[in-house]
Amino acid sequence: MIERLIAPLATEPGARGLTDDGVVFTPGPGMDLAMTKDMLAEGVHFLPDDPPDLIARKALRTNLSDLAAMGARPFGYLLGLASDGTRDEFWLEKFVEGLAEDQARYGISLLGGDTIVATKGIMTLSITAVGEVPKGLSLARDRARHGDLIAVTGTIGDAALGLRVRRQGLLRLPGHHRNHLETRYRLPLPRVDFGQAILGKANAAIDISDGLLADAGHIARRSGLAIDLLAADVPFSEAATALVAADPDLRLTTMVGGDDYELLVAVPPDHIDAVRQAAQATNTNLTVVGRCKEGRGVRLLDERGTNLADSAPGWRHHL
Amino acid sequence: MIERLIAPLATEPGARGLTDDGVVFTPGPGMDLAMTKDMLAEGVHFLPDDPPDLIARKALRTNLSDLAAMGARPFGYLLGLASDGTRDEFWLEKFVEGLAEDQARYGISLLGGDTIVATKGIMTLSITAVGEVPKGLSLARDRARHGDLIAVTGTIGDAALGLRVRRQGLLRLPGHHRNHLETRYRLPLPRVDFGQAILGKANAAIDISDGLLADAGHIARRSGLAIDLLAADVPFSEAATALVAADPDLRLTTMVGGDDYELLVAVPPDHIDAVRQAAQATNTNLTVVGRCKEGRGVRLLDERGTNLADSAPGWRHHL
Repeated sequence: MIERLIAPLATEPGARGLTDDGVVFTPGPGMDLAMTKDMLAEGVHFLPDDPPDLIARKALRTNLSDLAAMGARPFGYLLGLASDGTRDEFWLEKFVEGLAEDQARYGISLLGGDTIVATKGIMTLSITAVGEVPKGLSLARDRARHGDLIAVTGTIGDAALGLRVRRQGLLRLPGHHRNHLETRYRLPLPRVDFGQAILGKANAAIDISDGLLADAGHIARRSGLAIDLLAADVPFSEAATALVAADPDLRLTTMVGGDDYELLVAVPPDHIDAVRQAAQATNTNLTVVGRCKEGRGVRLLDERGTNLADSAPGWRHHL
Repeated sequence: MIERLIAPLATEPGARGLTDDGVVFTPGPGMDLAMTKDMLAEGVHFLPDDPPDLIARKALRTNLSDLAAMGARPFGYLLGLASDGTRDEFWLEKFVEGLAEDQARYGISLLGGDTIVATKGIMTLSITAVGEVPKGLSLARDRARHGDLIAVTGTIGDAALGLRVRRQGLLRLPGHHRNHLETRYRLPLPRVDFGQAILGKANAAIDISDGLLADAGHIARRSGLAIDLLAADVPFSEAATALVAADPDLRLTTMVGGDDYELLVAVPPDHIDAVRQAAQATNTNLTVVGRCKEGRGVRLLDERGTNLADSAPGWRHHL
């Protein structure tokens, strides 16, 4: 049943309709291959009663976000699915519908994979996403340079607040704000086009999955420098702005919360105009929020120069 | 802890020591990329008290066997590991030792991956193996032709008998025979060198994971022809020969049992000498066991021409 449902997702000829155990394909001339792999487990990354199409799409998109951070054009994925056999056909149909919808949206194909029924336990998903990137141009974390500007796409903290909405209701918040935040948590928008558009312009990139401070920290540590972020410049959505105004303690939640899947990029000052144009060309909001300096660590500065990061609980374990 | 243990396995520069979420690499000039992905779950593919190094090595090798069936040279893998957090450091150290040992043996590197701790449930492993194969030459299941000879590497049925040894003891069997069969079940020997050596010589290939009859059936169905196998020609190990002599009912077990991870190949008669030479050059035993004909389905013929496959229970669900 699973095979019958999943086989039509293999639109790429190299996948041979999933009839073989493997897939063969030819990267374009002058292209490197980019790959990333995530596992997701019920109870950790999604809940048993989450809509199956959204589970599928979030799983795909978190992997596409990793490719975006490399500047790679996605072209397919391999899927592993281990279930305890308690999912019915309706659940699987919805799950496959979610995959099909995002395959169409991002122009990718299922390339292969494996489905198994385990005798007990929870559902586990594994996705290996594959893309290509012009040879030698892929973005990484370790090439930020002293003086680079730090910029982020979109808005920060929505997903962390969306998770809180989901868990606590936060019914005092207007319905459209609650919807916005929860949707941002459930269905990220990987910056696939923007990632490709800044190749050769940005020095380093990472997708914000662990949280703004933690992911800035990954860039800082791997590049051997310090990053100063200006708290007042971090872009918020209207919904996040309203929620933080009502409960100022949530400001730090936005800075340490994960799952936004925006890109954080390090850009030499003389390339910032080109990167802004790349943002405009790909309908991406881009905001400069800080700068790379000599030293180490990440500071989150308020207007008086106080480092707010020191009072952000729990984020340092990411460093 | 997991990251500290696993990072040294990423010997390939493109894996960047696993510090990024993705991996970038450049396929050789004129090479296609070959990929395959398997999931393995505790209780299905391995047991909780299996030695962790053997779990790791079998997981790797079953994927290398898929690459071998494509004729691809393996060069790395991505690893996903979802555990319930009850495995201790000793278990993980042994698991990583197993990976390291087979990385060295097969000249491959860990390229990336993901480890998660699920809140409950069983352990699940996911491996995506990556290799390369000269452009357009990869072997598949659907290119066997009428008149092709069917040959298999090694011996058939050992793994199925090894599983039986493991479950039932079979203490009447001499110890070295029991060891041989159980080792064949626990630690397959993927035919990586032979697979590459027959590129351009064999028409089709598959690795015998579902069982001889079922995997011959995959070739027959996908190539649109029939396959006749001669039961008396199917090669047995000394241990299997002894066990089948003592219990003739086990002969069919060897034909429908899986997990041998030998290769079954379809070879045009005028290429059979070249394929034999490839076998010799790679220290591989090769036995012709049948032939492709017009028609459909797989027959397993005894000396009188009776089709034994009809009495082999349970294998037809693979077709």
